[in-house]
Amino acid sequence: MKFITAKDIAHYSFDSLFADALRYLEADLARWQEFKKSSRHATHFDHGVFELMPVADDSYYTYKYVNAHPGNPTHGKLSIVALGMLADVATGYPQLVCDMTLLTAIRTAAMSAIAAKHLADKDSRVLGLIGTGAQSEFQVHAMREVFPLTSVRYFDRDEEAMAKFARNLRGSGLTLIACKSAEEVVQEKLDILTTCICEKAKVQLFRYDAVKDNDRLFINAIGGDCPGKTELDPDVLRHGRIVVEFYEQTKREGEIQNLAGATVCDELWEIVQGKKAGRRKEDRIIVFDSVGFALADFSMLRMMYERGIGRNIALLPELKNPKDLFAIF
Amino acid sequence: MKFITAKDIAHYSFDSLFADALRYLEADLARWQEFKKSSRHATHFDHGVFELMPVADDSYYTYKYVNAHPGNPTHGKLSIVALGMLADVATGYPQLVCDMTLLTAIRTAAMSAIAAKHLADKDSRVLGLIGTGAQSEFQVHAMREVFPLTSVRYFDRDEEAMAKFARNLRGSGLTLIACKSAEEVVQEKLDILTTCICEKAKVQLFRYDAVKDNDRLFINAIGGDCPGKTELDPDVLRHGRIVVEFYEQTKREGEIQNLAGATVCDELWEIVQGKKAGRRKEDRIIVFDSVGFALADFSMLRMMYERGIGRNIALLPELKNPKDLFAIF
Repeated sequence: MKFITAKDIAHYSFDSLFADALRYLEADLARWQEFKKSSRHATHFDHGVFELMPVADDSYYTYKYVNAHPGNPTHGKLSIVALGMLADVATGYPQLVCDMTLLTAIRTAAMSAIAAKHLADKDSRVLGLIGTGAQSEFQVHAMREVFPLTSVRYFDRDEEAMAKFARNLRGSGLTLIACKSAEEVVQEKLDILTTCICEKAKVQLFRYDAVKDNDRLFINAIGGDCPGKTELDPDVLRHGRIVVEFYEQTKREGEIQNLAGATVCDELWEIVQGKKAGRRKEDRIIVFDSVGFALADFSMLRMMYERGIGRNIALLPELKNPKDLFAIF
Repeated sequence: MKFITAKDIAHYSFDSLFADALRYLEADLARWQEFKKSSRHATHFDHGVFELMPVADDSYYTYKYVNAHPGNPTHGKLSIVALGMLADVATGYPQLVCDMTLLTAIRTAAMSAIAAKHLADKDSRVLGLIGTGAQSEFQVHAMREVFPLTSVRYFDRDEEAMAKFARNLRGSGLTLIACKSAEEVVQEKLDILTTCICEKAKVQLFRYDAVKDNDRLFINAIGGDCPGKTELDPDVLRHGRIVVEFYEQTKREGEIQNLAGATVCDELWEIVQGKKAGRRKEDRIIVFDSVGFALADFSMLRMMYERGIGRNIALLPELKNPKDLFAIF
């Protein structure tokens, strides 16, 4: 079994990881029907959530463990850390245990980029960003891979997080426009808006009225990802086209949890496979209600496994006779 | 984060691990109400199953990954291997990754021993064992901790597995009676019968008629643990008292999946806590329909974590500013 740490992953450049992440994730979305899929398992506490995200094809079974503890940064810890495992379907034996904190950030950005590629205006130049935490720079870099971005309007209620974001994007060539509120971010015309805050509550970062005249807006809503955690005014959803990763999971976790009854949504894989159209002439606001799905983590684990890196570690018992486990003592 | 391999665990004696396992598991059953519990998540293939078993109290969140591939021994591999993780509830940070192949065998035996202590005749002397695979010796040792066993009647359709079992128990002081069939195991009067085969099918190891006159039999049914995998004649259940670990999970996975409608069962924790009686005068056959529950794995992970052993490994990113994940590149 191989073991890959965050340090092992950070040894590679973001650009090379991201390019591979896009390639693996698109390839797996293109064969969506081959996977055994289910909603993730979540254990909720008032202060945070613990999730397990399994999925399998005929070669690999993977899962990711991931938490979300919005209060962690106050104590010098990441809000979200993650750990993944890949096992051989033929035998059930684990082949890889891997840090997925970095890969979660990368796959989230890759999923956003794939959705945006199909659903945002090809000529998108202005990105809005509400929430400049750990995921924010990944989002900007991902969108730049796909669009000729020129400027970013951004806000976070944590001023230090805004300063960090500006520092990290200095020298990027992008015009950085710091805003004093979420409303101010959407006050000027945006092409893409990514909402990405960590608070576990139902908030409305802005009202539908503030964006209703924007006839080509793509909203990449990645922060509403848990029952009781949403960021959009439900009227935005009611007036937009909605795309999700996996409806069964999103209906309980995503922005659409605020809509009564079943919601008409496309699943992103349908668009990637050409079964449904990307942005059409008649589309105005399109919301990608992205909660994070196990398939994206599968793609990252497959990517790391197929790179063949990591140190070998003998975790499991190695027996001469597999029915003689007791002999190990 | 600590990392514990099977070799690290096998460094301890079975007796010391088992004594601790009993202690931790009984302590956790005694505070059953403090846990956030759910049925396990299973991904099924024709040739095997992949499971995730999470549970949490206010201090620790744990899960176990475990497979079951009955065909593995043909290729020199264990049918069942497992890996566990323990995280800090306060932060969500993983604290321990641990082989659980050995601990799964130990906790299964410990759960069997706890159930038998309450539900079998105190003076149990004759143990029947159908299935002498990897779990079999653990079962015998566990039951000997609790009862004055004198003999074991055993059968497995794999003659080599029977020979291995006999070899491992030679010198134990127990009279070993090799049987030619499952029916022959139950032909003489048993005090305890453990059924424990690996085949993923609905089989009937013996008919109810074969045991109906045994007025003090305790059946420890640990092999029926998956939809479509059972080992008992449903008439045994219909005529016996049934005890389970966690009804919500067992109703889909255990022997009781073969009974129509809701089944009257006690949960073992109710008996451990004295809310329900153990073996009563009027009880004849009692079946512990044991499928394996996450709490037992929690107890094992807590036990290993509190031993403070294992090597330190920096799996996750370590950041100066927890909101500046991108800085790692």
